[in-house]
Amino acid sequence: MTQPKTYLDIVKECDNFPYETENPALYSLHLENYYSFKVAGYTEVLGHVPKYIIRAFAFPDGWLVDHERQELILAPALDNSLTESEKAQRRTALMESTLKSMSQTPTRREFLALARKWRNETFPIYSTTTPGKSKIRLLEIERSASALFGILTSGVQLTAYTTDPVTNELKIWIARRSRKKQTYAGMLDSAAAGGLESGMNPLEGVVREAVEEASLGENVVRKGVRCVGALSYYHVMPPSPSSPSLTEPVSDGMKDGEEEVGFLQPEIEYIYELHLDSTTQPKPGDSEVEGFYLWGVEEVKAALLRGEFKLNSAIVVIDFFVRHGVITAENESDYVEIVCRLHRRL
Amino acid sequence: MTQPKTYLDIVKECDNFPYETENPALYSLHLENYYSFKVAGYTEVLGHVPKYIIRAFAFPDGWLVDHERQELILAPALDNSLTESEKAQRRTALMESTLKSMSQTPTRREFLALARKWRNETFPIYSTTTPGKSKIRLLEIERSASALFGILTSGVQLTAYTTDPVTNELKIWIARRSRKKQTYAGMLDSAAAGGLESGMNPLEGVVREAVEEASLGENVVRKGVRCVGALSYYHVMPPSPSSPSLTEPVSDGMKDGEEEVGFLQPEIEYIYELHLDSTTQPKPGDSEVEGFYLWGVEEVKAALLRGEFKLNSAIVVIDFFVRHGVITAENESDYVEIVCRLHRRL
Repeated sequence: MTQPKTYLDIVKECDNFPYETENPALYSLHLENYYSFKVAGYTEVLGHVPKYIIRAFAFPDGWLVDHERQELILAPALDNSLTESEKAQRRTALMESTLKSMSQTPTRREFLALARKWRNETFPIYSTTTPGKSKIRLLEIERSASALFGILTSGVQLTAYTTDPVTNELKIWIARRSRKKQTYAGMLDSAAAGGLESGMNPLEGVVREAVEEASLGENVVRKGVRCVGALSYYHVMPPSPSSPSLTEPVSDGMKDGEEEVGFLQPEIEYIYELHLDSTTQPKPGDSEVEGFYLWGVEEVKAALLRGEFKLNSAIVVIDFFVRHGVITAENESDYVEIVCRLHRRL
Repeated sequence: MTQPKTYLDIVKECDNFPYETENPALYSLHLENYYSFKVAGYTEVLGHVPKYIIRAFAFPDGWLVDHERQELILAPALDNSLTESEKAQRRTALMESTLKSMSQTPTRREFLALARKWRNETFPIYSTTTPGKSKIRLLEIERSASALFGILTSGVQLTAYTTDPVTNELKIWIARRSRKKQTYAGMLDSAAAGGLESGMNPLEGVVREAVEEASLGENVVRKGVRCVGALSYYHVMPPSPSSPSLTEPVSDGMKDGEEEVGFLQPEIEYIYELHLDSTTQPKPGDSEVEGFYLWGVEEVKAALLRGEFKLNSAIVVIDFFVRHGVITAENESDYVEIVCRLHRRL
């Protein structure tokens, strides 16, 4: 039996990258193990690639690897006459061919996993140097490589809930993930959730997931869904254990004394709520979900504190509890710390 | 006619202290003008006092002024046999006598204003070095001196709203502050709000303010009020203009080239909502409020973007709009930045 967690424990497990202001030394120490990922002509750091990945792969023409400054720069030759959109296409093409070539490199299991997990869906990477102005889409990156490059990704999460017609009690629809899923198999989850691919806005994303994963009617969702906030956190994935399905020998490209470090995964989740009437029930619509439970607050809370939720869905439940007055300033001593850490400025 | 603002403009006006991570040089430059306020035996910085205040006042025995490290340390002689509570009493007593003496010092208008604004209410100052553990209350400080010492203060804010029985439209109760108030006279405000004094928990605070300021029945409030979050921001008050009611001559204690700087005011606001039925109306209950308006979202939004709200009540409206799906990820390009800056980790 696992020791029950606190809400703050769960938030810290998700937002587990050190804070620069709180512990600058630890923050720097963490970043020493990574190369900054940049695009030529832009100063901002768009992601972080572990050092051992840089060492284990020969980046082709069009990339600059600056070992002095620990920077990996995407710098294909770009004609000045190209439009922003054409430039983005060139960068995207170079990224794609590089990743394809990486996925055929048997020197590390991470590269082989790229091939296995390739989804043919891309995440956009934006320049954010000009706050307030419209963001520039610099390129797109294959979804399964986003963690390898440590880029900021976005997703949507939908909490579906209802009010018990007899007791007036708040009830929440909780999904059980399929036991066959590659990630977080069998764990508890939001009613619907997913990554935000290139070209999709959050509302369209959440409508699609709700229809596909929870079999809810598109009209029901569009009419009732409400955008209620955004969560953001900086997660470090633990170094990947050897995948049981991968038996290839691995020369891991590490130098003596170099530690394997996790992938960085800063993320923004757009949060939606859907109040369903008591006759509407989500049902598994694809192979992602095993089933749905309609639980009261106490049942959800108990499962949450036992660690049964997928991590970034656990913090969605915590945020829902804050918004609905379940976790309050009076009953939770870490209230302010929890609320602030759910909204890390990335 | 003032230029309409954006939501992000308003958030930035409130959370206007530079971010260390974003602009370390600017952050340091700002802090150079202040002495850190500490309590002997505790490492954490509890507040910030402008340099010119330190120069203009001779701190009595029991204080250490470290000009080298720019620290002002409250260090009364404390016997080891004293309990935490007795130690807090001694510190509080020294702080009070110091502030009384400061308020009788005619060298700066800030000191004279202390006397004029003295409220005989105190704010608690906690040690937060042990997150997760119960906080230690180190001392209390007269409320009107909290800005002078730049300590973290807490307050409560209540948004009262209703649903139009005919149109089903969301309507919000907005208060107009009395034209005679010392601060933000005549501006728009939440239905009820106030500072959290020593010994008061947020819920009791919001109930008291709702009863006193909005004449709502205590039972109505206790039954319907819901804790829905917390906002936190780091505000720098602009340097105080000469107060028209103060005619005393001021030798301002500044050195050549030293600029007057504002007081630092980090603050946490506990956020409450109260859904009223359409027959219940808030009414002015004390001299704080001139009247209440029941406005639709568009009216509130227009007044907000014209800058007619008290600043920290303006961000409460923005947070309400986020929670209620008025400001969304789809209709607001600065959505994530707004949501994160409303929850600054202090």
